[in-house]
This record gives sequence, structure tokens and C-alpha cells, in this order.
Amino acid sequence: MFPKNAWYVACTPDEIADKPLGRTICNEKIVFWRPKAGEVAAVEDFCPHRGAPLSLGRVCDGQLVCGYHGLAMGCEGKTISMPGQRVQGFPKIRSFPVVEKHGFIWVWPGEASLADPAKIHELEWAESPDWAYGGGLYHVACDYRLMVDNLMDLTHETYVHADSIGQKEIDETPVATKTVGERVLTSRFMDNVMAPPFWQANLRGNGLPDNVPVDRWQVCHFIPPSHVMIEVGVALAGKGGYHADPRDKVSSIVVDFLTPETDTAMWYFWGMARNFKPRDHALTAEIRAGQAKVFAEDTGVLEAQQRNLLANPGRRLLMLNIDAGGVQARRIIDKLVAQEQPQPLAA
Amino acid sequence: MFPKNAWYVACTPDEIADKPLGRTICNEKIVFWRPKAGEVAAVEDFCPHRGAPLSLGRVCDGQLVCGYHGLAMGCEGKTISMPGQRVQGFPKIRSFPVVEKHGFIWVWPGEASLADPAKIHELEWAESPDWAYGGGLYHVACDYRLMVDNLMDLTHETYVHADSIGQKEIDETPVATKTVGERVLTSRFMDNVMAPPFWQANLRGNGLPDNVPVDRWQVCHFIPPSHVMIEVGVALAGKGGYHADPRDKVSSIVVDFLTPETDTAMWYFWGMARNFKPRDHALTAEIRAGQAKVFAEDTGVLEAQQRNLLANPGRRLLMLNIDAGGVQARRIIDKLVAQEQPQPLAA
Amino acid sequence: MFPKNAWYVACTPDEIADKPLGRTICNEKIVFWRPKAGEVAAVEDFCPHRGAPLSLGRVCDGQLVCGYHGLAMGCEGKTISMPGQRVQGFPKIRSFPVVEKHGFIWVWPGEASLADPAKIHELEWAESPDWAYGGGLYHVACDYRLMVDNLMDLTHETYVHADSIGQKEIDETPVATKTVGERVLTSRFMDNVMAPPFWQANLRGNGLPDNVPVDRWQVCHFIPPSHVMIEVGVALAGKGGYHADPRDKVSSIVVDFLTPETDTAMWYFWGMARNFKPRDHALTAEIRAGQAKVFAEDTGVLEAQQRNLLANPGRRLLMLNIDAGGVQARRIIDKLVAQEQPQPLAA
Repeated sequence: MFPKNAWYVACTPDEIADKPLGRTICNEKIVFWRPKAGEVAAVEDFCPHRGAPLSLGRVCDGQLVCGYHGLAMGCEGKTISMPGQRVQGFPKIRSFPVVEKHGFIWVWPGEASLADPAKIHELEWAESPDWAYGGGLYHVACDYRLMVDNLMDLTHETYVHADSIGQKEIDETPVATKTVGERVLTSRFMDNVMAPPFWQANLRGNGLPDNVPVDRWQVCHFIPPSHVMIEVGVALAGKGGYHADPRDKVSSIVVDFLTPETDTAMWYFWGMARNFKPRDHALTAEIRAGQAKVFAEDTGVLEAQQRNLLANPGRRLLMLNIDAGGVQARRIIDKLVAQEQPQPLAA
Repeated sequence: MFPKNAWYVACTPDEIADKPLGRTICNEKIVFWRPKAGEVAAVEDFCPHRGAPLSLGRVCDGQLVCGYHGLAMGCEGKTISMPGQRVQGFPKIRSFPVVEKHGFIWVWPGEASLADPAKIHELEWAESPDWAYGGGLYHVACDYRLMVDNLMDLTHETYVHADSIGQKEIDETPVATKTVGERVLTSRFMDNVMAPPFWQANLRGNGLPDNVPVDRWQVCHFIPPSHVMIEVGVALAGKGGYHADPRDKVSSIVVDFLTPETDTAMWYFWGMARNFKPRDHALTAEIRAGQAKVFAEDTGVLEAQQRNLLANPGRRLLMLNIDAGGVQARRIIDKLVAQEQPQPLAA
Repeated sequence: MFPKNAWYVACTPDEIADKPLGRTICNEKIVFWRPKAGEVAAVEDFCPHRGAPLSLGRVCDGQLVCGYHGLAMGCEGKTISMPGQRVQGFPKIRSFPVVEKHGFIWVWPGEASLADPAKIHELEWAESPDWAYGGGLYHVACDYRLMVDNLMDLTHETYVHADSIGQKEIDETPVATKTVGERVLTSRFMDNVMAPPFWQANLRGNGLPDNVPVDRWQVCHFIPPSHVMIEVGVALAGKGGYHADPRDKVSSIVVDFLTPETDTAMWYFWGMARNFKPRDHALTAEIRAGQAKVFAEDTGVLEAQQRNLLANPGRRLLMLNIDAGGVQARRIIDKLVAQEQPQPLAA
């Protein structure tokens, strides 16, 4: 269950650099390609001639050429040409609004007339030279909402990520959760704790001692339809924590774009944006490798959870205080989905 | 959708040389074996005792002996013996008409009383010492009719086989298609073109220059239930093309026996028969290797097309002039299938 | 189709030595662990918090700690604790009666109030220092009743195990089958035959000649719900066969615990208990390796048989004299399953 009238991250630019990309998003099979430098197009991945996936084809002079019989498809879903054929009468296939922004390709799988690029939310870290970003993509066989739950309740770090970012103080420190408009915010502040391995490495990476107490924070932002941005960091204890001077802390934003593939599978665009040593590419690569390991741990647990839930369809789960972030996020998702349903006529 | 009252290629003799072969043909699970040299038998692949596949067994003294408890099955589906048992009362299992001819094993999966070996069409190249044949077998996860379409419309060569047999003149030269009785014929003649790599190699193989213009032809014959024979060749330009003297051309027959496995999968017996240098085994092997690569390219496209069609069941495809061969062939298939349906009683 | 009110072998102690084990038994997803040395617990493999499999977790101080958010589960299915939570109101999950006995962990997947450990049948070989046991576990994709049939009709040995324990005299010697209470017994005695390779090795292992005639026996015991114990052995010919002096024979018990996983898959705990040279561990390992090969042969046949039966649902199989053991065993299984159905009210 997902809203379709929304902008989702479809892919990264490198995925369409050399050839078209076929990807299912919100149950729509879509092919993405670059008609020219700086532009991107998205249409149904279905050739109107014989139904071959257009994503098997190639891009020639900005046109997507079917790999079966050479039909050339245009950005709007209209056939441009085909060897030996008059194509004016060919049926149009569906095209999808698609935009490149913030270093990602965004697609709107719902009603095209409602797609407004201005609705793609701002990402300061993506546009400023003071920030560096590194990330990756995982395919995860679970409902994307299980990942929302996961990211809005970080108590799991103590168990799933015991060797990297977990520590028992996460469990012991309550969170505060609130809904603000269409966003959900859940925060945890742990004062005077020892940094776990991942943060020790980051402290060292920023030239700070890794063996002294720190103040640690986690502030999770759910942003519809399915994005979770988590402000995380540690500051030398007593220096102001979240508000400490940049010289006394390391902080970053865990970036999670969750794009539904089907009802029980998703594309997980994960990464980290940081505003310290932004030009240190070796550090970017090191952080990225650490995250890749961490998020693979989540993947294993969530896919097993999904199988268990499918095998026990009627079963109710618990909604504890730690689950408030996921619960409130789902409430917003439900509302967005309901708004897309046909409205009953007035009596 | 396929006629069942027809001869299909089931396997090649080497596949039953040492042991029985289990193969599903037109949704029938069948086991093939040699009761004696020069003979072949085919029965249901289901032991009447406990249901084990008879194809797991072995052939002893011409009998097919079940690998589970030693039941010996005869060619007609009647149990011959079983250790310690009287078998007279054992239920018969179904046997299938089966014939070895032209270097292939042919099976009739439908009503046995209608099976007439004389209906297996003649293949001159299979019987004459002036011809050589080499081929192979692929399993393809698609409706065999998608392969009929593919082979009756060779414009795809330009796109799917760009590195071997494709060339832009194929697209640019219209085809002529006609139905003659129960056969369909579609032809294309390209005069004064340069030969693509596959044909260059064949020209060299036949001692002809490979860097001069040629006249190229493709004449596709659809023969029910699902065989496509394609006369292909190139002649030095202006020497008469298709009708040129053998010294001035290389020509061959692309042989395609398409045997349905299920509604969405098929066995693809592919090969090439040629009447030049028929005793040059190295050339046979070289051509075979080239074809193996070409037909593997088709396989990838057709399986993707099949998945796309299954995911879009209601969708109509285009029927262009280039598709006339497939369209007319399907018309014949439809007629044959309709003839097999129970006839309504006269009023 | 299987009785659920019965003790089944769930696993061996080594499988829960270091970490919890998730296993589906009679369609129930269960997690097994050791709360303390010498104890074993079994509950639903479903965390009541968010549905993650508890088997992904770890055992800490005897509690099963969920690997997702640290919920600690107790033996009775009651949550013991969870960081930062009051757990009194958490819903109980189902627990299963479970017992360690005879070197195996036994579970009762049905109505817990009926589970009586005294109903686990006695296994003399498992408790006496005069016996040695070696075995293994296979997952087999078939209805466990096909394995019951297999083990209660050893004529298959001649065909499936031709290189190890098969010999033609098995086929030629009739069996006697009878039901005694809730057990089925089927026996075959072959006098004055040559030992097949597996028994030759055992004769040598026990210091007896391997190239002289022997009397061989096979006595299969079906014991509900799904255990088959087979007394097997060979004695030097004319020395009394089954009743010969231990110095003149080698004998053992083939141990088969068949535990349904689902309706079409099973866990096969196989092994052999012997009362000669019980402290010869190299011999135990050698026999175990031989059995592993033999039972892998069965697995291949039974999985193919299962696929054939699923593809031919309406088809009736033959019930020959050799099948009497399986037929009578299924009669007992049917009765046990019927007894578990809700009883109609008296009129």
C-alpha cells in the first residue's frame, strides 16, 4: 500500500549513463533513459509493437530504440519512427513524469497531471559544497513500510548492529515522537556515553579523540511518501551535544529513500551525508563501506520478518512507545493513500 | 495453444543413446527410449506401480525398467514383468506414436489412431549426401508462437543480431508474404549489399571473396504445426541471386523445429543445412558455433517478451506488414487447433 | 496428512548447541533453544512485538532474545522482559511440549495438554553402552508417507541402491506383513545368498569373511506416527540367521525418524545403530558415510515421484503385496488423524 501520486527516487544517474534501465516502481514497469545530456525520460517498459521490454534496447540520438525490431520511442510515449513503417497511428504508451534533482532521478508513478517538481523536498546536503554524500542501493524483499518502522525505531541498532552502531544506552533512553503536519519526528539524546565503533571511526576521521565520553543523538524525520532522514552524531561530552561547535562533534545525515517495487518488495537507496571533511573521498568510501554492512544486516532481518508476516496474515503486532514513529508515519501514508481513492458522490 | 494431432520433433538420437529421456511435449510428460537398435518407443513418464518417473530407470534388453522397484514397461504402455508379481492385471499407461526420420525422433502427442508417419514432411537436406547438417537444442521459456513470429519476421536481425547477420538493408527491403494451402511463405531479396560477418565467413568458407557486393535473400517457410525452414544465402552481385550458379553463391537452410513444452515454454531444435562443402566437418562446427550464439540472442529477447506479455494480459499488439508471416502462420495454427475441438452435433 | 498429537523428532542436540534453531514441523514454525544445560524449549518462531523470527536471535542467560529489538522470550511463550518496556500485558505466544530423550529433541506439535513424555517409545540401542549410533539429517521435498512406503518395501534396494545393499534375491523373496496393535511389521528372510557390498564391508568390520554365503534378513517396524526401525543383518549361512550367535553375524538397526515439515516436505533423520564394535568410531563414520550415499539415492527418487504425483492428482496407484507394509501403515496414520478430528455430538 503506497501513494502513487508522489515523487519517488527511481535510480541514480550512473544507472542510466550508458544504456536504458528497466525498473518496477509501485507496480509499474518503467524504462528510464537520457534523451540528451541533462534530461531524463520514463515510459512504460513495453514496446507497442510486440511487447518486448524497451529496456533491452539502446539509446540512439536520444531516442530509445527497441532491441527487437528497431521501433524508436520518444519521451512522451509516442513512437517516433520504425524502419519501413508509418508510425502516426501507433498507439501511445504511458509516459511518467520524471525529474533529475539532488543527484537522483525522481519519478511520479501516479496521475501525471498532478506531478509538480516543486513538491520534491529540499535537500540542503545535496546542493552545498560543504557536504559530502556516499551511498548505495539494495533490493529488499519486504513491504517498504517495514523499513519505515525500522528506521523510525532505532532501538534495533543494539541488536541488529551490535558490532557497529549499537549500544545499550539506545534501549535505555526514551524517544520523543511527534507529527508535524505531514512529517513525523522522533528524537533520542544520550548524554555522556562511550561511542560505539562506527562513531569512534568518525571521531578519528574528524581528528577527535575516540576514547572519551560523548553526547550522542538520533533525530529521525519521516517525510512522505517514504523518505527517512536521520540526523545522527556525537559531540565530546558536555560541549553542547547536537548544538555543539562543529570542532567538537561529528555529525551526519543518514539518508534513506524507500521506493516500493511491489507490495512486498522495495528499492532501498541508502547513504550518508556529512558536513565534515567533505572533500576526503577516502573517508567517504570508508563510511560507505561501513553503511553497506550495516544496511545488509537490516535487510536480512526485514526479509525474514516479511516472510513471517505473510505466513501469519491475521496476526496483530504490538505498537509500543518505541514504535510511535512508525505508527505515526503509517497514519500519514494511510491518509495519502485514502486521498487517492475515488471520492464518493455527494448525496 | 497448439495442435496435438501433429508430428513434433521430440529429441535427437544422441539423447536416447545410453538411457531413457524424460521430456514434456505439448503438456504431456513422456519418456523415450530405444527398445532395440533402430527402434524408438514413447510412453507416459509415470510408473503405474507408484508413480515414479520411468525416465529415472534404465533400459535392459529393450525394456524400460523402472528405477524404483524394477517394473519392466513395454513399448505399448503395457507392463511386461515385475519381480515377484503377476502383471496381467496392471493398468496400461498411455503410449505415443513415435518415429525416427530425417535424423530426429518425432512424436505425435495427440490421438494415436490419427498418426500417420507419411505426414512427416520431406526434408531433402536430411537424406542427401550433398548436404551437411549441424544444430543444437535450446529450452526457451516462451510460447512457441513467439518464436514463429520471430522467425517469420527477420527484420529483428538488424537489432538482435547486429554483430553477425543483421544489416540495415533488411529493414529497408519490404517482404512479400503469402499463404499457400497450409503453408506460409515470406520472402525478402536485397540486391547489391555488403555481406554481414556471418555471411562473409561463409563466403570465405566456400572460397569466394568476402569484400564485394552480394545479392542476399531470405525465404521463410512456415510448415505446420510449428516448423520454420528459412532459405538464406548470398551470391556475388549480379550473378542471378537466389538462382545463381552454385559456384557464385553460398546458400543454406536455417532449420527450426519448435516443439511446445507447455503453454509458455518450448524446445528449440535449431540448425543449418548447407549444400556446399558438405564433408567439411570443421566448417559444420564453425557454423554451428555461430548459430548457437545467434539463437541465444533470440532466446533472451523472447523470454523477456513473454514475461512482459504475461504481466500485461489484456494488451493488444500491433500487426504490421512485417508481421504478416507470423499472423498468417497463427491463422493456420488456429484452424488446426479448432479442427481438434469436439464438433457440435448437427441439429 | 499427519497426526499432530504425537512426538516427532525435531532436531539433534548439536543443532541447538550454540544458537536457537528455527524449524517448521507439521506446518508449525517453531524455534528451539536451550534455556539451560539439559533443558530445551520450543515456542512459535514469531516475536509478539513485530513478527520477526525469534530464531534469528540469540540465547542470553537462558532467555531467547529477539535479534530485532531485544524482547526476551521465556519457555512458556511469555515475554520476560524488553528494554524500556513493561511486558506484563504482552500477548503470550504458543509454546510446544518438547523433551530430550534417546539423543534427540522431540516435539509435540498438537494439543499440549495431551503430551505425555512416556509416550515416546523406548529405544534400547540409544541407552545401552553395547550399541553405537551414527546418523544424519536430510530435507526431502516429499510427503513423509512416500518415505514410509519406501522403507516398508525394501524391494526398491535392488534398483535404487544397486551398488551397495541391493541384490536380486530381495525381489525374489516374498515378505510377510502384519499389523500388531498400532504397529506394522514386515519381514523378509533370504537364506544362502552372497552379501552385497555394504554387508561385505560390515562382515569385514566385524572380523568375518565377506566371500561366503550368508543368511540375510530385513525386519521393518512401522511405529506411529512416522518412525521406521529396520532390523537388518547377515549371518554366516546355516548358523541360525537372525538368531545366530553374535560371533557369526553382523546386525544392526536402520533408524528412520520421518518428521513432516509441510504436506509435501519432510525432515529425514536417518541413521544406524549396531551392537558390534560399538566403540569403533572409525567404523561408525564409515557406516554413516555409506548410509549418507544410500539415502541420498532415495531422496532423488522420492522427490521425482512426489512431483509426478502432484502433476497427476487424480491418478490411482497400485497396491501390490510388496506394498502391504506401506498400506497398513497408512491405515494406522489415517486412524490417528481421524481421532484428532472434532467428534460429532451424540444425537
